[in-house]
Amino acid sequence: MKITVLSLFPDYFAPLLQTSIIKRAKEKDLFSFECIDFRSFTQEKHGHVDDTPYGGGAGMVLMCQPILDALKSVRTPDSKVILLSPQGQTFHQQMAMDLSKEKHLIFLCGHYEGFDERIRDYVDMQISLGDFVLTGGEPACVVICDAILRMIPGVIKSDSAQDDSFSDGLLEYPQYTRPEIYDGKRVPDVLLSGHHARIHTWRKAMALRNTALHRPDLLKNRPLSREEEDLLAKALENPNEVC
Amino acid sequence: MKITVLSLFPDYFAPLLQTSIIKRAKEKDLFSFECIDFRSFTQEKHGHVDDTPYGGGAGMVLMCQPILDALKSVRTPDSKVILLSPQGQTFHQQMAMDLSKEKHLIFLCGHYEGFDERIRDYVDMQISLGDFVLTGGEPACVVICDAILRMIPGVIKSDSAQDDSFSDGLLEYPQYTRPEIYDGKRVPDVLLSGHHARIHTWRKAMALRNTALHRPDLLKNRPLSREEEDLLAKALENPNEVC
Repeated sequence: MKITVLSLFPDYFAPLLQTSIIKRAKEKDLFSFECIDFRSFTQEKHGHVDDTPYGGGAGMVLMCQPILDALKSVRTPDSKVILLSPQGQTFHQQMAMDLSKEKHLIFLCGHYEGFDERIRDYVDMQISLGDFVLTGGEPACVVICDAILRMIPGVIKSDSAQDDSFSDGLLEYPQYTRPEIYDGKRVPDVLLSGHHARIHTWRKAMALRNTALHRPDLLKNRPLSREEEDLLAKALENPNEVC
Repeated sequence: MKITVLSLFPDYFAPLLQTSIIKRAKEKDLFSFECIDFRSFTQEKHGHVDDTPYGGGAGMVLMCQPILDALKSVRTPDSKVILLSPQGQTFHQQMAMDLSKEKHLIFLCGHYEGFDERIRDYVDMQISLGDFVLTGGEPACVVICDAILRMIPGVIKSDSAQDDSFSDGLLEYPQYTRPEIYDGKRVPDVLLSGHHARIHTWRKAMALRNTALHRPDLLKNRPLSREEEDLLAKALENPNEVC
């Protein structure tokens, strides 16, 4: 897997590559990463990459030439070119998993008022991180790269990925660590019991309960087995007595 | 506005503060920012902040003590404490606008398998960036801070904010800049006409059309005036003849 980012702010990606799990994956060559400042491709004097919008209005618009020339210089038949834009498909975990299997991802990060509309004709896919507005595509791109990179085999332990929120269509179950009592709040007895089957059942029940209480919309697309339905009913009635 | 982030990876926030619009806002003292490494609050030998989960399983869980002691050291009656978690409310533009009016935001960024569940009892609000999993809360926190900070008065021009996607419940209209023809693709004639009323109408029509085509769900919560309905119908039928 190779990721190429086209951005005016290459420094934005340093923390992603220098932190924790992604840093170690980079050191193990589980992926390669390059960030290209498309300003270096401009044919304008003074290095401009943007200009005022036709029709007037606030802000500056990124021009086709520098971005598309930069894109041409890195695109191959293996590349998937992704534009970050509020018009795109909303990013989600399945998309992270699918994109983690691509050979080469190229991300175009906009800034200022946005891109010249014609740039959209040259991309394979548009992704939106969510229904909010950012100063540029860079922070969104860091998030998307982080989500994709951790899905590459070997980056995190496979049993960790199985426990992730959303991986099973559910939110994660509650986690506890030492001490058994903190500020009067106790760890649930079942987790101290050493009884693996009961712990497994309790965790499943709590994942179902969390999802039903906090994100009922997730259950619309995730059919429950009869066993899961029974467990959820019990967990909603009395979470302390599911097993 | 003051933002305090509790994180094991303070360096993650340098690009946010050193780039473009947010950098200039920081230089103008439009907000203040601090990042506190809660590892410095741990009472464990060797600086540990996490431990294995009760009940077994993969990964490590962040302990209550270092995070909550760090929180106590910065929390005031003016603080709003936000936990980044998949269980939270999904972040959106109205939330960015509302949070930009708070005096003091404190963000707790998790890492590894997550937090001890009991930490949730000490926060005012939980936010999720979307339905995907990250290596930690930091990249999500950078995005959320960026979206909030640009809504503080003076950070961007107010006429820029009015044009934002989502600010009017719609996606943005298409933008174009020089040249008039790029790779055979022409800027729409109306934008070259100099006729401000027609340009305004065309842009509104295209914003409605983009939204209807790419994000029809946004229109469910955004009633259209009769004028807007007529404009949308025309724009869907023939986008080149709306005005």
